[in-house]
Amino acid sequence: MSEAYRKAGVDLDRMSALKGELIEKVHSTWTRDTVSLPGSFAGLLKLHVAEGTELALLAATIDGVGTKALLAGSFNRWHVIGVDMVNHCLNDLLCAGAEPLFFLNYLATSQLDEQALLGIVDGMVQACRELNCPIIGGETALMPDVYCPGAVDAVGTMIGIVAPDRHLRPDRVRSRDVLVALPSSGLHTNGYSLVRKLFSMEDLQRHRSELGATLGEALLTPHRSYLKEVRLAAATGGLHSAAHITGGGIPGNLLRAVPEELMVTIDTASWEPPLIFQIIKHQGNLPLEEMFQVFNMGVGMVLIMDTSAAVEILPLIPEAWIMGEVLPAQKGKGRLQFER
Amino acid sequence: MSEAYRKAGVDLDRMSALKGELIEKVHSTWTRDTVSLPGSFAGLLKLHVAEGTELALLAATIDGVGTKALLAGSFNRWHVIGVDMVNHCLNDLLCAGAEPLFFLNYLATSQLDEQALLGIVDGMVQACRELNCPIIGGETALMPDVYCPGAVDAVGTMIGIVAPDRHLRPDRVRSRDVLVALPSSGLHTNGYSLVRKLFSMEDLQRHRSELGATLGEALLTPHRSYLKEVRLAAATGGLHSAAHITGGGIPGNLLRAVPEELMVTIDTASWEPPLIFQIIKHQGNLPLEEMFQVFNMGVGMVLIMDTSAAVEILPLIPEAWIMGEVLPAQKGKGRLQFER
Repeated sequence: MSEAYRKAGVDLDRMSALKGELIEKVHSTWTRDTVSLPGSFAGLLKLHVAEGTELALLAATIDGVGTKALLAGSFNRWHVIGVDMVNHCLNDLLCAGAEPLFFLNYLATSQLDEQALLGIVDGMVQACRELNCPIIGGETALMPDVYCPGAVDAVGTMIGIVAPDRHLRPDRVRSRDVLVALPSSGLHTNGYSLVRKLFSMEDLQRHRSELGATLGEALLTPHRSYLKEVRLAAATGGLHSAAHITGGGIPGNLLRAVPEELMVTIDTASWEPPLIFQIIKHQGNLPLEEMFQVFNMGVGMVLIMDTSAAVEILPLIPEAWIMGEVLPAQKGKGRLQFER
Repeated sequence: MSEAYRKAGVDLDRMSALKGELIEKVHSTWTRDTVSLPGSFAGLLKLHVAEGTELALLAATIDGVGTKALLAGSFNRWHVIGVDMVNHCLNDLLCAGAEPLFFLNYLATSQLDEQALLGIVDGMVQACRELNCPIIGGETALMPDVYCPGAVDAVGTMIGIVAPDRHLRPDRVRSRDVLVALPSSGLHTNGYSLVRKLFSMEDLQRHRSELGATLGEALLTPHRSYLKEVRLAAATGGLHSAAHITGGGIPGNLLRAVPEELMVTIDTASWEPPLIFQIIKHQGNLPLEEMFQVFNMGVGMVLIMDTSAAVEILPLIPEAWIMGEVLPAQKGKGRLQFER
């Protein structure tokens, strides 16, 4: 797959094979109440009041912000990392139709860096307050022999809840459903290992008039929340499933929200990837295919909906657009087709 | 405080001051349904079916295994780290009286280390299967510029549930309650930064007849679970509160389970710290006070109970013993007294 990404120190192929093996082991722990949806953005557990009464589903996700933290450190924008931790988790839960209940965090560094820890916690607190989602646990670890000098890792976990009849999942998707794209606010939390290899610190610090900022600043926009948009879409009753576009881009995430017997076509003429992705593509001389596999390319979340429901919400979410549709899968044809 | 520990690269004092500030920020996210129990081993959230009906409390904790992972790597005993992740979290939840619902994990390394990842996941899966606790989420990250070569960080989070009338907490503790100690299986997951400074690799690899193993092997016993013991104690109806003895030892954890107006006395003659702690104390020439502040000293969990309930369960848990009692706090006297 990605040659440039392998050079960037991340062996995605071997990792992906190993992940399969790890996931199989993990599935051996699943119980009767575990909702078996491999590929789901959030893990799900049935919650009972008493035997036989399914009250609700608890949804859970855990995520790190990856090497975006290194870039945030270079620009002393730790606050962004805190917001990222929360919104990355939130958007995973939204794919299941869940509303956030609470958040926990784990911050680890090589040595005590008060500015980093205070900045991250400020961002986390701000994002959680906006969601009315309490932070009920956390751990901060200093491990000089584990972390590179100055490096920080930031991990968040969010638990949510959803009524069984509001649970978004692939088997609700129908042929002729449309794909409603919600724009990303930037790279969100993916592709930073590659970006850090492509640009020097000098590149990152130079003001770019076309961005109205330095490249570093543009790369450090926080991962945005889709809570409002997903609530609006869910209120129509026609929202069936959703995909959070994270590591692996649209090819790596969209089909996680679509059942095996269906495929999707994407009209790449329906949007222009934002300038930041064009700058990265040009600098790395990267093929478009690779760009789509590493970056979100301007699409942060895809809602899979009834056409009529989509028509209803598009005027309410002016930044959203229809990027494609769902069709029956065809033998011998890939389930994800880019068309222009 | 701990001079040897500071030398070991962990500045506990500055960290503790900063943690206070971070916790204050985090509390600003707490909602009406957040159970406000600062110092609690697990965070708690009230779960409602409908307005006004409190169904249950969700309990949650997040923890890393710290530098024990470095030692596990040296001895290729990754499995232990997986068990540690699960049982450390479990024991935090047990302090609230909660039963485990599900587990999530985050594993991060500098480069792909299949043996490490498979070993940790095997340990995690084994421990979770024993608890009937599904692993419903996980993330594995490779970050060469964040982690030191060969280093692994392992973070677990466990969510549990408890009926409001079974919620263990400080305000249930009464004067004349007794402290029932449950033995640790070793260092659990604390004190490894200090241990790694005190012993050379040669020290760790030498077989010690008094331990029946090498010191390294003895240091790598997994963090044990107290699920069975806490269930037995809870069934008496006389279990009021509990403390998981982790970082900070008995002085840093026991009073988290006791209300302000009460104190505890501990009879240090009631047990002999296991050999491994004596070996560490001797090697580092460490004062006993410091040993108690860094290590669990053989006490992994303290149950705070009615005397009559304690008398009832002691024959059922032969390894448990009464290590002290609860008394009214006295002005000008520390709330934690070691007596012999």
